[in-house]
Amino acid sequence: MTNTASILDGNSFKASDAEGLDPRTRSLTERRRVLGASYRLFYRHPVELVRGRGAHAWDAEGNEYLDLYNNVPSVGHAHPAVVAAVQEQMSELNTHTRYLHPKILDYADDLLSTMPSAVDQIMFVCTGSEANDLALRVGREFTGGKAWIATAEAYHGNTALVSAHSPSLTGAEEMDPALRVIEAPDTYRLGDGTAAGAGAWWTARVAEAIADIEASGDGFAGLIIDSSFSSDGIFLGEPGMIAAAVDLVHAHGGVVIADEVQPGFGRTGTHFWGFERADYVPDLVTTGKPMGNGFPVASMAARREVLEAFSLKRPYFNTFGGNPVAISAAQAVLDVIRDEGLQRQALEVGHELRAAVRELQGVHPALGDVRGSGQYTGVEIVSDREAKTPSSAVALDLLEELRDRRVLTSVCGPNNSVLKLRPPLAFRSTDVPRLVEALDASLTALGV
Amino acid sequence: MTNTASILDGNSFKASDAEGLDPRTRSLTERRRVLGASYRLFYRHPVELVRGRGAHAWDAEGNEYLDLYNNVPSVGHAHPAVVAAVQEQMSELNTHTRYLHPKILDYADDLLSTMPSAVDQIMFVCTGSEANDLALRVGREFTGGKAWIATAEAYHGNTALVSAHSPSLTGAEEMDPALRVIEAPDTYRLGDGTAAGAGAWWTARVAEAIADIEASGDGFAGLIIDSSFSSDGIFLGEPGMIAAAVDLVHAHGGVVIADEVQPGFGRTGTHFWGFERADYVPDLVTTGKPMGNGFPVASMAARREVLEAFSLKRPYFNTFGGNPVAISAAQAVLDVIRDEGLQRQALEVGHELRAAVRELQGVHPALGDVRGSGQYTGVEIVSDREAKTPSSAVALDLLEELRDRRVLTSVCGPNNSVLKLRPPLAFRSTDVPRLVEALDASLTALGV
Repeated sequence: MTNTASILDGNSFKASDAEGLDPRTRSLTERRRVLGASYRLFYRHPVELVRGRGAHAWDAEGNEYLDLYNNVPSVGHAHPAVVAAVQEQMSELNTHTRYLHPKILDYADDLLSTMPSAVDQIMFVCTGSEANDLALRVGREFTGGKAWIATAEAYHGNTALVSAHSPSLTGAEEMDPALRVIEAPDTYRLGDGTAAGAGAWWTARVAEAIADIEASGDGFAGLIIDSSFSSDGIFLGEPGMIAAAVDLVHAHGGVVIADEVQPGFGRTGTHFWGFERADYVPDLVTTGKPMGNGFPVASMAARREVLEAFSLKRPYFNTFGGNPVAISAAQAVLDVIRDEGLQRQALEVGHELRAAVRELQGVHPALGDVRGSGQYTGVEIVSDREAKTPSSAVALDLLEELRDRRVLTSVCGPNNSVLKLRPPLAFRSTDVPRLVEALDASLTALGV
Repeated sequence: MTNTASILDGNSFKASDAEGLDPRTRSLTERRRVLGASYRLFYRHPVELVRGRGAHAWDAEGNEYLDLYNNVPSVGHAHPAVVAAVQEQMSELNTHTRYLHPKILDYADDLLSTMPSAVDQIMFVCTGSEANDLALRVGREFTGGKAWIATAEAYHGNTALVSAHSPSLTGAEEMDPALRVIEAPDTYRLGDGTAAGAGAWWTARVAEAIADIEASGDGFAGLIIDSSFSSDGIFLGEPGMIAAAVDLVHAHGGVVIADEVQPGFGRTGTHFWGFERADYVPDLVTTGKPMGNGFPVASMAARREVLEAFSLKRPYFNTFGGNPVAISAAQAVLDVIRDEGLQRQALEVGHELRAAVRELQGVHPALGDVRGSGQYTGVEIVSDREAKTPSSAVALDLLEELRDRRVLTSVCGPNNSVLKLRPPLAFRSTDVPRLVEALDASLTALGV
């Protein structure tokens, strides 16, 4: 397994791809030298998007795309309710949390009402990275320990501290010396996604890591976890699959950070939060991408007792975090999810999507596994279905075929072999046939 | 000197202040328990702002305030050009930098055209904290050194890495073990703000720190500097005052991070950037607060050679960083600064403001020093003008008196004794008399 596969060698444009591009695309890619080499573009043939509505987007030439890889505009590209909320508040005032404003309090109460009652305080920041940076520090302060557990392909953000706790960056970044990295519960290869199956296997991995930490002098801080294991390959399993592992962390005095950037805000359909679906009560809950539909707003909710270890001794100010405009965007998103029934829609449409893709398994042997919950679907691409041999080469070619058929997706997992279908929640039943047709045609074109 | 004075014991509401508040204000302060104890409110009697225009803001009861402490809505509260730019782009599309979009390239070229030609690449993030977090890592990567130099009251942001390089947090946060902390060039007590005076003194401090680093095994990374020394007490001095010190950093192989969150975007009036006024070419330039007039957008510009040490081996993705909406806000701000001549206005109005405050020095012995450039003015409050004895007590009382006269300001410096006048650039000549009257009346009320 190549730890850095998903981020370094995945779906990205390389200079050698420039030859065949049309002049405008080529010129834009060349002009991006001003942004530096850390920037990556999706696709060998990059896409210039100029407009979006719902789960659809248009390029500069007017071609329409089905967007299956965007959890940022979660309630739909350019949703008018979010646009209006931002415009209205921006036209009035945009200050910060050192002045009083009722909106931040109303939203804090509203968002916390969706969480267990034990999670009763919240801090606002601008990005999921800032939220996780803060959560890692709060957890260390509360436990006095340094050592976190994270999964092998996890990506939790881009600050120095969070990068050092994002094992998917191994090879590019130095990991924190105290970090313990464990495999994710691969429900495909472990045979099932139950608590007794993949869940028990994973509890054993967590137990080993805790034992290793306790035998060292590092001190146990806890577990940082995306309960959808999205970067690891999307292993949602059955609800409650990982609850026993989380209980074990708590039993050993560790703090659990539920990184809800991927599974939160209704995406899994069955529950509003990933930790709720996984059936545990976290100590810290971090949010990001979908919270403001593209407006930079994020948060860290907390059990008061855990946060106070930090907050009673340290000031923390985030200039833009929780400003009235950011909060207006977040409130509009939360309202739209409820008003438009997007969680229920995610449950139903995701079910239809997976059923339809599973039908293609009869025709296309490359479709090794189709898994997920709600609007989070992983399709594992294999070269040998019996042996479950992952095929990054086919998966990456498939992405380009889909892109040429104007369906936008990407890959994840340790081998870049899992097609990641993560559309805006605005993705509808009527969009499913289009995806299935494009997938069928693309696999046929590849002869797999 | 109390290192943590400015952030921990400065202008902030305490629970014991709640007694005398009106019911609504008291209720809002009580509801803020949901936000956790790290949050601080300005003033013993907090303000609930609901509307803003230019350098003016209104509270929930309709009272109008003069806002002299807000460099975020830099081109003016709720500036219609920024509101329109954000609304227009939000209505179309808000994706990220893995798709092509010309706006980010146009803005990158435009912003870099205001900098020295050696600074020729730029990365976009959401906050000044994220920008400095990245810059500290890039500088370490390029030099191979760990040890930065920062000034005693500097605040560079809130991530784990940046907090550990923000000496104003000493006592609340552990500083990086390799960090060297030096005093800022206090132009008031050193007697002048010339290169030969305070500049030479400060060059000696930098030289000592470099020698200390070189004698250790830490390796020299460089200097992170706000050239307005705003948290240290606002010591802009004469243009070029600190150029020799910066040359010394470069001569010893160090990288210079110009933190332009405070002095950038025309604030000092004489120049567009703080480093330009200070007359040096930085290796890395970080921006934040005023860049998007409250929209969360920030950046790190770089010399290509320095950035490539990092960018050729590490991917870096910032989901919201440089998204088309953030870039639209930033472009609108840059256009407004130029179209409305705000840099020139800052120069002229700042000059008038300081001249008017200096006239009050004849009547009020507490006004020890009036210094600054453009729309950045520090007024040092003293208990003994001969001895230049700083008076935090008077300064903090003065803040409340000004607040009751509906003029919003705050304090800075190691003793919280420097009144910090940092209005939106939209602050006009016609606003100066109102400030001066309120200051006169407040000092008279305090009998100083």
